[in-house]
Amino acid sequence: MGKTKSCVYLVGAGPGDPELLTRKAYRVLEQADAVVYDRLVSSEIVDIVPPGCTRIFVGKASGNHILPQDQINELLAKLARTNRTVVRLKGGDPYIFGRGSEEAMHLARHNVCFEIIPGITAAAGISAATGIPLTHRGIATGLRFVTGHGKGDDDLDLDWRSLADPSTTLVIYMGLAKLPELSRRLIAAGLSPDTPAAAIANGTTAQQRQCLSTLENLPYALGDLDFTPPVLCLIGRVVSLAHELNWQGLSYETLGLESLDAKARA
Amino acid sequence: MGKTKSCVYLVGAGPGDPELLTRKAYRVLEQADAVVYDRLVSSEIVDIVPPGCTRIFVGKASGNHILPQDQINELLAKLARTNRTVVRLKGGDPYIFGRGSEEAMHLARHNVCFEIIPGITAAAGISAATGIPLTHRGIATGLRFVTGHGKGDDDLDLDWRSLADPSTTLVIYMGLAKLPELSRRLIAAGLSPDTPAAAIANGTTAQQRQCLSTLENLPYALGDLDFTPPVLCLIGRVVSLAHELNWQGLSYETLGLESLDAKARA
Repeated sequence: MGKTKSCVYLVGAGPGDPELLTRKAYRVLEQADAVVYDRLVSSEIVDIVPPGCTRIFVGKASGNHILPQDQINELLAKLARTNRTVVRLKGGDPYIFGRGSEEAMHLARHNVCFEIIPGITAAAGISAATGIPLTHRGIATGLRFVTGHGKGDDDLDLDWRSLADPSTTLVIYMGLAKLPELSRRLIAAGLSPDTPAAAIANGTTAQQRQCLSTLENLPYALGDLDFTPPVLCLIGRVVSLAHELNWQGLSYETLGLESLDAKARA
Repeated sequence: MGKTKSCVYLVGAGPGDPELLTRKAYRVLEQADAVVYDRLVSSEIVDIVPPGCTRIFVGKASGNHILPQDQINELLAKLARTNRTVVRLKGGDPYIFGRGSEEAMHLARHNVCFEIIPGITAAAGISAATGIPLTHRGIATGLRFVTGHGKGDDDLDLDWRSLADPSTTLVIYMGLAKLPELSRRLIAAGLSPDTPAAAIANGTTAQQRQCLSTLENLPYALGDLDFTPPVLCLIGRVVSLAHELNWQGLSYETLGLESLDAKARA
């Protein structure tokens, strides 16, 4: 079997703001014959899909009703047989979490032509939008991305001692449900409970909300708010720069900052 | 002093390919009155700067001839007094290494209006271009970005034991000079010498070159090639997927793979 004449583009849609699509992603999206997308792609970006293009939604808000990954893989290969330009839109970047490489591998093994178009990963989009730099000389010299997405109710399988490093910025993808466990275990591993921490819901979209707190108090702060996924958490000293670098004049929720306030008064 | 009427845009230029600029970055660049850029911004992107716009180059190829950071900070604030749209173009993303937050802080403290526009960081751009995913279920569940840029001849100040984690992908920014030390210390800390490793020079541009090797042999492999900065190194099991996901049909240099070959023959 030779390569198909059509191509499947695995496209990073970025964090939500359609202006944060790359020029390449936008051009491919405008030319799409079929688009497959899920709940992490903002509605503003889905609106760019041209009329007449087949749109296939493969994910719902609840974790229990998402088309299984192997069926998405099959769907992409199948669409390539009858469409010239198939776009698989993925939130953020296809190769940073999000299982883009599983889709690519399936296409490669079935001899379907594919291309990868990178996207602004949520961490970078939200960092720019909130004014919380991911690195800053003398404050954070390294950067780690982990997923807080565990299997069901299982505990997270992470190297807590290694994560509890005050000179590294931790970015937690999909960590809302596991945040209490994350906070507790990072503190148990030695990271200060007063480490600045932020949660950002629907980052870079019109629905963005942001909360500043401490590592210890962030889970309680979020319990009092009704943040809906996607939520990204940033943990580390860089979060303390948010007020100074808040170029958009965002209003931050700051519930649960009692321990910081007490320190400031001391 | 009130806010200036003009605005300084700290713009992520991405890894090199002008098609990987975001739509927002491209639009701002087209409207620029003054652009400040350095050697990490590709010439193809500098070519987008409109005629009549003031272009200021602040970095040379040799580490000894770069305008000091505090002078760049001053320059941006000064340009904002006489230009409406000042663009500070930075390679990759302004808030992932690259000291964008230092420039933002200087502008904030001098009451100069600024905005941050994120960019595709080199890791994501190069991952897409080479077919080396940064995460892959069951192979790499976490991702770390570190800089190999130490002070002069000083040893790197990194937590080697924590970095030597086979289930994490390590991305080394600006690590060419320090690669022998990185390799030696990661192995001493327990990471297998056979861990797949890649170095990519001038990623996503027409001058891109890529080398696959092992953690142990990558420094020797690069010693035999004449890779010029910027070079990004990827270390981790995901590198082994490069051949299967190599959608562009890239030719990889594979010098120094003797130990892998020996294992394959065993």
